[in-house]
Amino acid sequence: MRFYSKTLTDIENEVYIEEWSVSSSELNAGEGWRIEKRRLRGGPSDGVDVVTVNNGVLSFTVVPSRGMSLWKGECQDLPIGWRSPVRCLVNPCFINLEERRGLGWLRGFNEWIVRCGLESFGASGIDVIKDNMGNEVEVLLPLHGRIANTPASLVRVKVGLNPPFELGVEGIVYESSMFGSNLKLKTSIVTIPGSRTIKISDEIENLRGVLDEMQILYHCNYGKPLLEEGAQFLAPIKRVAPRDEEASKGIDSFNLAGPPERGFIERVYFMELLEGADGHTEAMLVNRSLDKAVSHRFSAKSLPFFTFWKNTAAEEDGYVVGLEPGTGFPNTRNFERKHGRVVKLGPSEKYDIELNVSLLLGRAEVEEAISRIEAIKRGAPPIVHREPIEEFSCA
Amino acid sequence: MRFYSKTLTDIENEVYIEEWSVSSSELNAGEGWRIEKRRLRGGPSDGVDVVTVNNGVLSFTVVPSRGMSLWKGECQDLPIGWRSPVRCLVNPCFINLEERRGLGWLRGFNEWIVRCGLESFGASGIDVIKDNMGNEVEVLLPLHGRIANTPASLVRVKVGLNPPFELGVEGIVYESSMFGSNLKLKTSIVTIPGSRTIKISDEIENLRGVLDEMQILYHCNYGKPLLEEGAQFLAPIKRVAPRDEEASKGIDSFNLAGPPERGFIERVYFMELLEGADGHTEAMLVNRSLDKAVSHRFSAKSLPFFTFWKNTAAEEDGYVVGLEPGTGFPNTRNFERKHGRVVKLGPSEKYDIELNVSLLLGRAEVEEAISRIEAIKRGAPPIVHREPIEEFSCA
Amino acid sequence: MRFYSKTLTDIENEVYIEEWSVSSSELNAGEGWRIEKRRLRGGPSDGVDVVTVNNGVLSFTVVPSRGMSLWKGECQDLPIGWRSPVRCLVNPCFINLEERRGLGWLRGFNEWIVRCGLESFGASGIDVIKDNMGNEVEVLLPLHGRIANTPASLVRVKVGLNPPFELGVEGIVYESSMFGSNLKLKTSIVTIPGSRTIKISDEIENLRGVLDEMQILYHCNYGKPLLEEGAQFLAPIKRVAPRDEEASKGIDSFNLAGPPERGFIERVYFMELLEGADGHTEAMLVNRSLDKAVSHRFSAKSLPFFTFWKNTAAEEDGYVVGLEPGTGFPNTRNFERKHGRVVKLGPSEKYDIELNVSLLLGRAEVEEAISRIEAIKRGAPPIVHREPIEEFSCA
Repeated sequence: MRFYSKTLTDIENEVYIEEWSVSSSELNAGEGWRIEKRRLRGGPSDGVDVVTVNNGVLSFTVVPSRGMSLWKGECQDLPIGWRSPVRCLVNPCFINLEERRGLGWLRGFNEWIVRCGLESFGASGIDVIKDNMGNEVEVLLPLHGRIANTPASLVRVKVGLNPPFELGVEGIVYESSMFGSNLKLKTSIVTIPGSRTIKISDEIENLRGVLDEMQILYHCNYGKPLLEEGAQFLAPIKRVAPRDEEASKGIDSFNLAGPPERGFIERVYFMELLEGADGHTEAMLVNRSLDKAVSHRFSAKSLPFFTFWKNTAAEEDGYVVGLEPGTGFPNTRNFERKHGRVVKLGPSEKYDIELNVSLLLGRAEVEEAISRIEAIKRGAPPIVHREPIEEFSCA
Repeated sequence: MRFYSKTLTDIENEVYIEEWSVSSSELNAGEGWRIEKRRLRGGPSDGVDVVTVNNGVLSFTVVPSRGMSLWKGECQDLPIGWRSPVRCLVNPCFINLEERRGLGWLRGFNEWIVRCGLESFGASGIDVIKDNMGNEVEVLLPLHGRIANTPASLVRVKVGLNPPFELGVEGIVYESSMFGSNLKLKTSIVTIPGSRTIKISDEIENLRGVLDEMQILYHCNYGKPLLEEGAQFLAPIKRVAPRDEEASKGIDSFNLAGPPERGFIERVYFMELLEGADGHTEAMLVNRSLDKAVSHRFSAKSLPFFTFWKNTAAEEDGYVVGLEPGTGFPNTRNFERKHGRVVKLGPSEKYDIELNVSLLLGRAEVEEAISRIEAIKRGAPPIVHREPIEEFSCA
Repeated sequence: MRFYSKTLTDIENEVYIEEWSVSSSELNAGEGWRIEKRRLRGGPSDGVDVVTVNNGVLSFTVVPSRGMSLWKGECQDLPIGWRSPVRCLVNPCFINLEERRGLGWLRGFNEWIVRCGLESFGASGIDVIKDNMGNEVEVLLPLHGRIANTPASLVRVKVGLNPPFELGVEGIVYESSMFGSNLKLKTSIVTIPGSRTIKISDEIENLRGVLDEMQILYHCNYGKPLLEEGAQFLAPIKRVAPRDEEASKGIDSFNLAGPPERGFIERVYFMELLEGADGHTEAMLVNRSLDKAVSHRFSAKSLPFFTFWKNTAAEEDGYVVGLEPGTGFPNTRNFERKHGRVVKLGPSEKYDIELNVSLLLGRAEVEEAISRIEAIKRGAPPIVHREPIEEFSCA
């Protein structure tokens, strides 16, 4: 395979390109696609790097400055993502994750797909770490960790020069500290011209000389128009439990979205999914008329726990649901550790994840995906816990 | 009215202009004025945007990067503002508001006029907020809130093309978080060529879908030469009380400034002002010889509480007084709420404020302003509490 | 003496130069040297200013954005410094010093020579400060203070136009806050073409109108190749004590480095050094074969306490030792104050420090330095405390 490759950022070698683009015609490789790199300026976005990939049908924006998150997408006039109260991309330099007892992450949260992790994700809470003296000290781990507020140290665009002319954005993000966790995220975000699928391939490596912990969760968020009253969440659920009393109230229709509702308090459902013969599983959000959907396929081995976040509040407050495959549930790390849901990586050990996100348009495509999910289920009814269970949440 | 308008920053539309200027001759609109936009570089000021308006007689610098604060002014060789121990404009990216139990704001504090707010202002202290789960959690609200350390998302210069050729700088600042307060400040800072007045018109809107709180205070600060031994604070005081025992000590001459004094501890006086027939009130700082002054006119409806901050410390430590009209007193928000001094705004509800700041030069102008204040007082003597009162402060 | 001088940053006068260089041939002053200024872009280094001085034999990089630290050096193919888990220079805008109970400093720590201070250095811990109201409040002082994460406000290159053609980088860094400490660091970092010595001359001034505290420590760090199994620390030790039990374990060979060791917990030794007739003392790190070394000469008056930090962990975790002359030991400031090791400076009072760092190549040079140290010792055996002593550490 021949590839065209362009390094946009490589801080070790002092490479940085502010504005740049490439297109199918320039490379004489396929048709109708274009990749563009920009540096945003002014306001809270000042200095944010973005790379927009338009494959001719689907476009999306990767944000190196925010840990290689995917900001917004668009597919044949269908906007993908959601409308957060936080309107613009926020440079992490303006974010204090420890703010308000560890809720600072919420001041920059507006992405379509944002990784939570890598030292920890989930609710902010106290945990014990070892300090430089080898002493155990209690520290606050902030909500959803640091990775989304850590700029990438390397960004590269890679384009296949033979069919199918793969379009890829690669990045390396270091979540490092002396005397602290030192995790390297290597990501490759790839699409094919004309397709409606994005493949996210992540590799997380423990760079420390000692065994260490790692957590990752993919917070995939959808608002209007995909989300609407009657939109539903579909997945081959093995078992599901509400996170807390608030979520218990809505357990009967937990997978169905209501209309925007002022003062709605988030309802969160924790689950395990069944996996198909190939080890993969799939989770979807489908609109009411079953003709638009977004599907997430991934290995249940690497992302064995799944969270459905239902926040159908008023539109101004973020009418949104989140589909969140992860290495655990978004409780405090301390709680997750007790229940064996924190990954441990030895020195130089790597953890591989692949997440495929597809936009499905038209009833045929949606039904096909539903069939795939049914095939995984093989008729098994989900175990539905009507109340929070101790194994899943502390509420 | 015809207007010339130039957008300097509009992050939603990816507009950003680094260096720019316009002048009376270029627009053929009036004479002798000039507006200039610059981006500061290097040190703690790196990346700070400033817009300097020179109306021919009065010049001042608006700082979009710091929430549309007014940095320094100058009027016919009279410097306006003060000399803070913090010498240069500090990019909020270097400020951690939560530092030292919420005192981080002080590491960037050197403006002439800086807004405190909008979620909260006043002393840092613990308050209860609702988190994403709907739970009440205790958090630290940092000193004077976030607005002064939040970059503006939109900045526009607007010039009237007909007399009186209004010169305006407009800005929008979002103080937003998911699951948190979401307040929009829309400001217009206007002067007229050859005048010595600045009109600040602010509109604060609650963008949330639910009722929320809002607080704002205008911290207007003056050092030498306007401030000097014998300079006095004048206003139509209805009643005044010292904030604490320290302030009680100086109650007899609370409105008179002393010389710079090493080790002076700030004395703060809380008051309510009388209002004139038009609902407006006025507060001044006048120099000893009564021939130079700065006056602040505003509606006592929108800014019903007034604080006089006396910090006549050594010049190195910030020899300064603050005239501070606000929606409440700069106590903790928790305390202010108990005393009914926190504004509540419904969804999309707006709160309008107009603050007129005028430099008065010569005895005639100063005496005219004093007469206006006397007219508001109509001979009523102020109620002077010699000790702190429970209603005003917890000290 | 005639000097060539170039101001690269002067924020008070809005001077900032992004890219620049000068060399011996351009100035017709000596030979083979070059000074280059760059602004790094992208990732966590975005916006970091660096000035690289190459004197023909020795090169090193000064980092104005990080308080005029010295990042890395190189001397005739010998890399100087260490390999931290934090790979690149980190812009302080991405650092939250208060993170993890005050350990945020570790997220940017990778310099060869970094100053710790100036309000405080040492372990993070609670101390009492006076707030704006004159009240004593407990705050967290973060690990190693703020100076290394404060950008310089003035940066100037100065080159002597007569022999020996001194090459200097000067900087001013303000560690300032309203109602807080206000310390000015004025540094001059000088080398001579062809030499292997850097002279760091620092002046710290208390800009407050009142008496205030100051602490400074020079954290000089060495990894491979200078550090290796059998490398040793040499100094005219008056007395030495381990910081804690962990350090006690290794007291017998505290001055000898072991090989990289997974899971090694840092061992720290506090000491007082003897001084020579001229008031100076010297501390060295020497390699196993005694033919490469780095020497630090300084006045024992200005830097009376010395810390040897031994962190011979796995290479991935930072195989490093630190030679750290300071005004005290890196305990909490509160502890240091109790033991009289915190400097007090009156208004406008200055504190001068000179630190000479030399690379020694070849046995002859190394032996000469060892002789100098022996001469200072004059045969006096060091007092070796085998357990932590109360006077030095609280462990």
